[in-house]
Amino acid sequence: MSYNSFGHMLRVTTWGESHGPAIGAVVDGCPPGLALSEGDIQPFLDQRRPGQSKFTTQRQEPDRVRILSGVFEGQTTGTPISLMIENVDQRSKDYSEVAKAYRPGHADYAYDAKYGLRDYRGGGRSSARETAMRVAAGAIARLVIPQVTLTAYVAEIGGDRIDPARFDAGEIARNPFFCPDPEAAKRWETLVDEARLAGSSLGAVVECRAEGVPAGWGAPLYAKLDAELAGAMMSINAVKGVEIGDGFDAARGTGESNADPMRPGPDGDTPEFLANHAGGIAGGISTGQPVTCRVAFKPTSSILTPVETIDREGTATQIRTKGRHDPCVGIRGTPVVEAMMALVLADQMMMHRGQCG
Amino acid sequence: MSYNSFGHMLRVTTWGESHGPAIGAVVDGCPPGLALSEGDIQPFLDQRRPGQSKFTTQRQEPDRVRILSGVFEGQTTGTPISLMIENVDQRSKDYSEVAKAYRPGHADYAYDAKYGLRDYRGGGRSSARETAMRVAAGAIARLVIPQVTLTAYVAEIGGDRIDPARFDAGEIARNPFFCPDPEAAKRWETLVDEARLAGSSLGAVVECRAEGVPAGWGAPLYAKLDAELAGAMMSINAVKGVEIGDGFDAARGTGESNADPMRPGPDGDTPEFLANHAGGIAGGISTGQPVTCRVAFKPTSSILTPVETIDREGTATQIRTKGRHDPCVGIRGTPVVEAMMALVLADQMMMHRGQCG
Amino acid sequence: MSYNSFGHMLRVTTWGESHGPAIGAVVDGCPPGLALSEGDIQPFLDQRRPGQSKFTTQRQEPDRVRILSGVFEGQTTGTPISLMIENVDQRSKDYSEVAKAYRPGHADYAYDAKYGLRDYRGGGRSSARETAMRVAAGAIARLVIPQVTLTAYVAEIGGDRIDPARFDAGEIARNPFFCPDPEAAKRWETLVDEARLAGSSLGAVVECRAEGVPAGWGAPLYAKLDAELAGAMMSINAVKGVEIGDGFDAARGTGESNADPMRPGPDGDTPEFLANHAGGIAGGISTGQPVTCRVAFKPTSSILTPVETIDREGTATQIRTKGRHDPCVGIRGTPVVEAMMALVLADQMMMHRGQCG
Amino acid sequence: MSYNSFGHMLRVTTWGESHGPAIGAVVDGCPPGLALSEGDIQPFLDQRRPGQSKFTTQRQEPDRVRILSGVFEGQTTGTPISLMIENVDQRSKDYSEVAKAYRPGHADYAYDAKYGLRDYRGGGRSSARETAMRVAAGAIARLVIPQVTLTAYVAEIGGDRIDPARFDAGEIARNPFFCPDPEAAKRWETLVDEARLAGSSLGAVVECRAEGVPAGWGAPLYAKLDAELAGAMMSINAVKGVEIGDGFDAARGTGESNADPMRPGPDGDTPEFLANHAGGIAGGISTGQPVTCRVAFKPTSSILTPVETIDREGTATQIRTKGRHDPCVGIRGTPVVEAMMALVLADQMMMHRGQCG
Repeated sequence: MSYNSFGHMLRVTTWGESHGPAIGAVVDGCPPGLALSEGDIQPFLDQRRPGQSKFTTQRQEPDRVRILSGVFEGQTTGTPISLMIENVDQRSKDYSEVAKAYRPGHADYAYDAKYGLRDYRGGGRSSARETAMRVAAGAIARLVIPQVTLTAYVAEIGGDRIDPARFDAGEIARNPFFCPDPEAAKRWETLVDEARLAGSSLGAVVECRAEGVPAGWGAPLYAKLDAELAGAMMSINAVKGVEIGDGFDAARGTGESNADPMRPGPDGDTPEFLANHAGGIAGGISTGQPVTCRVAFKPTSSILTPVETIDREGTATQIRTKGRHDPCVGIRGTPVVEAMMALVLADQMMMHRGQCG
Repeated sequence: MSYNSFGHMLRVTTWGESHGPAIGAVVDGCPPGLALSEGDIQPFLDQRRPGQSKFTTQRQEPDRVRILSGVFEGQTTGTPISLMIENVDQRSKDYSEVAKAYRPGHADYAYDAKYGLRDYRGGGRSSARETAMRVAAGAIARLVIPQVTLTAYVAEIGGDRIDPARFDAGEIARNPFFCPDPEAAKRWETLVDEARLAGSSLGAVVECRAEGVPAGWGAPLYAKLDAELAGAMMSINAVKGVEIGDGFDAARGTGESNADPMRPGPDGDTPEFLANHAGGIAGGISTGQPVTCRVAFKPTSSILTPVETIDREGTATQIRTKGRHDPCVGIRGTPVVEAMMALVLADQMMMHRGQCG
Repeated sequence: MSYNSFGHMLRVTTWGESHGPAIGAVVDGCPPGLALSEGDIQPFLDQRRPGQSKFTTQRQEPDRVRILSGVFEGQTTGTPISLMIENVDQRSKDYSEVAKAYRPGHADYAYDAKYGLRDYRGGGRSSARETAMRVAAGAIARLVIPQVTLTAYVAEIGGDRIDPARFDAGEIARNPFFCPDPEAAKRWETLVDEARLAGSSLGAVVECRAEGVPAGWGAPLYAKLDAELAGAMMSINAVKGVEIGDGFDAARGTGESNADPMRPGPDGDTPEFLANHAGGIAGGISTGQPVTCRVAFKPTSSILTPVETIDREGTATQIRTKGRHDPCVGIRGTPVVEAMMALVLADQMMMHRGQCG
Repeated sequence: MSYNSFGHMLRVTTWGESHGPAIGAVVDGCPPGLALSEGDIQPFLDQRRPGQSKFTTQRQEPDRVRILSGVFEGQTTGTPISLMIENVDQRSKDYSEVAKAYRPGHADYAYDAKYGLRDYRGGGRSSARETAMRVAAGAIARLVIPQVTLTAYVAEIGGDRIDPARFDAGEIARNPFFCPDPEAAKRWETLVDEARLAGSSLGAVVECRAEGVPAGWGAPLYAKLDAELAGAMMSINAVKGVEIGDGFDAARGTGESNADPMRPGPDGDTPEFLANHAGGIAGGISTGQPVTCRVAFKPTSSILTPVETIDREGTATQIRTKGRHDPCVGIRGTPVVEAMMALVLADQMMMHRGQCG
């Protein structure tokens, strides 16, 4: 069962609500003997942290992570690693409106329908704040697979795409959009700012690429590497679509246009692929090519325009979502996508090692 | 762990290779007291069965399912239901070429890299033949959630889309493409036949809709209804992309265009939604609207055009895949998509009932 | 996978070392709408707490539990409940001896062999301190199955048994041994005190009985109620044996002596059993009779008598375990046994409800 | 979830009823490249097979196993191995009595209470026939851990124990009781035959020892090697108690009598233990000593003496169980205990390899 857990051998369980005292994660099954301190995790949290530019929510959270177990004298011990971040900016705002009326597009109505009650403060458990723990756990997963290099970036905001010809990995950290194309980044400043000022929001597409994954990770059927990635990405708040390799474009092509021919590699051992339409996965198992996926984030549901809705009694009403919201959740979703990729890959590496030695 | 199993409470484990003596599935956790016989399963298998038109593989398999356990006097007993289909048409063709050289786009190279060996006859475990057992298991899952109506259909072949204005559910069973638009079906006859004659292949997009899902199924985070659906769909052979609701289109819109406003329903109890961009899922939990998803199938990798590849010794060679292949695997994937939707929903219903009573 | 997790639908993950900053547990899958506060958990922790009599370790831990998530306005929300206890009495004693030499009977050597390193302070992860979190989680499980009454007690210390004829449930809370026989309790004062003064230790047998379990909980084979109980009890530190019902005595009898005849019950509905050799479980499923088990705790391995051992370099040495140890771990194991019984039963109730409605 | 599955990485799912067409198992996660044919499994099934002496049931089942998948050219492929045994001796006897009245000590009443119906023919799913598949799966597990030698034997029947001083492993295969003490075997001939002739039955204790298990298999808490073993053994039909190492005897001793002192081993590398009260497991992890356990089987519940019971309508009646029953199920339970030990150890080896490399 996996209500709030993720992974098979490297298993992450997260807990916590947006406005409770803290949020946390337990990372179980981590290999022993890895050098680990808070300093290995904090930089990734800082990437995701709110309040760093006007293009993300103005909530001010230091997101300072503490390791409470599983590390001794600077090394992982193989026992569960407990991570905790205290919630600091729990502004005691008035939640009476959200408590009463359902915000369309949010989990409000569905939670009430399921559980009969919900913690409505700041979205409670359904808050994107939970993704901080994914990023923290992902930082540990990276240490498990040091041979893998991960690169996630925003490829598209509100339908405006980067130009692949201008792709520059070094650019990603230089703008507030995780954008690898400096010209797109410039356009997005205007685009996102306009949405922000209008109290509107925009969707985004995030791409992630993992280099250094050897051939052989994954499993034939239900724990396929691509199936695990799809589940992992779709479990991130606001995600509505996942593609591996060419994704939906592959569905529009032919067997010839979609082929990834192979030839002997220069080292005589690892073969070379002449294309990577498959996104590095065939039959659920990695091929040694870069593993690539694309993730669609819907626009933030919280907008200033009043939307028709009902209250808990079923009466018609309207709601405008005031507050400190991301005009484009996909931006801060980028480190989360990267973390989920790291978690899936580390887990699959361990499963592969367990079965195949 | 879930190499070859799927689901939490309603758990399906499949086994078997394309050219072994049989394929099968064990469905564990099924509620007791459901009326079940082979006659409840066979019609769904017949939909997926090969050799029924020139648009699918000419392999001739009766795909006759047997129930070997878990049913007594016509009712499920709550114990595991073992399903088996004997492989009949194991044409003793010459596999020496496939045994030696890797077919690009197939699982050949990845399997060898992972396991050091593979059953190369007809794709072995990676054959689409495995999906017959998903369809069989899905037929049982349908009995667990009789309140739900499932409709899957092909929405697009090789980039040629149906016209939503001509959508007619009754049409789906009347053509060999599971196509709800009679005009598109006519066009596809030519399109697919041309690909078939040219030894080429085409991709497709399958859509699936579940009506009658009550609000409240699913779970907040890693067992989100959409995450489970994404993993389930991506685990089907040849699938490269999954969308829930508007999917990637949502990523191109604004918070306003993506809103699903609510108002009191006519019965005063269930609310009415004015749109369904979310595909019936918010925060990982069903909202009571139809649950919708779209699934991208790549073109069959087996084509007559020679493709550059290597053999097991790493030497350069070429391969043309002769044999009886589907010119468009997405077509026969349609009942598989429907079956996976049934399996996910039945499982989530049981998990919801277990937790929330 | 379940390195540090327990349960299927009601799933508990514990973390923390004896001398780290804190220990904790995440209880996932708890039904929503249960009234829960720290006050529902603390009394059970107080039962297990060290330092309450001279018959248990003198470590002084307030074991004050905090609920960090999953409860809103006094009710469980259905989301993960995070529990934490800060470690207070981490006496900065000298661990250099334990760090170097392996204490026979402890996990020292096995941990080093497995992980290549270990947190040796106070036993680290293998400390009985972890069981505090089982007791805390068990307190929540009790709320899930309010119809069940649990009674655990010590039945035997160092081979000295209670007299079943003098069994008085009310007596259990009145002595420091959880002993239901006041005369045995008196004898044990001397027995345990002598062991304590001699720096020795004693084993114990704990019995637990659950009344109010309806017929039908459990599963036919690998999730049998008795199999789950056996695994749960054997996972407690220092436990070496588990019996259901008559246990090993059943192995010494005949089919006639072991029969549990049935007859119509007085209410005409629930049958009456004339004996309960089976311990309330047949074929892995509860019968409606009290569920009973017996658990064997070995004597604490920490004794003052020097024992031959080796150090990390493999050199012969001797070790005497000074410090604040329980002369009989079975005593404080009693609330832990009760908690594990509660966890197994609550989990099985939910699994039963999920499958059978 | 694990209603009918067992194990984490090496995962066995069994299916089938005593009087259905067949029984079977799917072994998932098996390492690739192991030489495997039916000939590796059949000898173990033959040990367990009924009808081989007058001391076991006279049901005549050839128990001929077939491998239906997962093996190619004599080697495991890493994909699921499907095993099946057809039921041959489904004597069409009259089950009307068992269909109506509950046999005390059997699963009859509990199954009906849980599921509302049951397959009553020959015990259905609760038949000891299911254990044939454990033995078959165990034969595969042995191939995963060739370094381990397993020895199971009956140590006690109806309270009559073997003399450890006369233990001779070679003797086990020479008598129909898996008895390592030739004199006990002689006594048991009379003992069991008397029970058989009287229509009575006897309990038994089976011991199992695994040599060659290296230090380091297992996990700290809930997947402890001893917890997994306890669950595995208790899941076998008719088992009521499990002990690891000294078990309940440890509960009657002192820290001194229970110590397992260590000293440097002759090879300078692996330490030597001067005793093995712990049964080769400390802190849930193997120590390198032989892993030992003891398992209590209750007497067969099927006896000729009429026992008071009720029928499905709740009316008082009596039942005598005629038919072909084992006078002592513990005897044929011996290969099952050995198989479960093999399955647990192989699974733990793979989990250890997955986490620790």
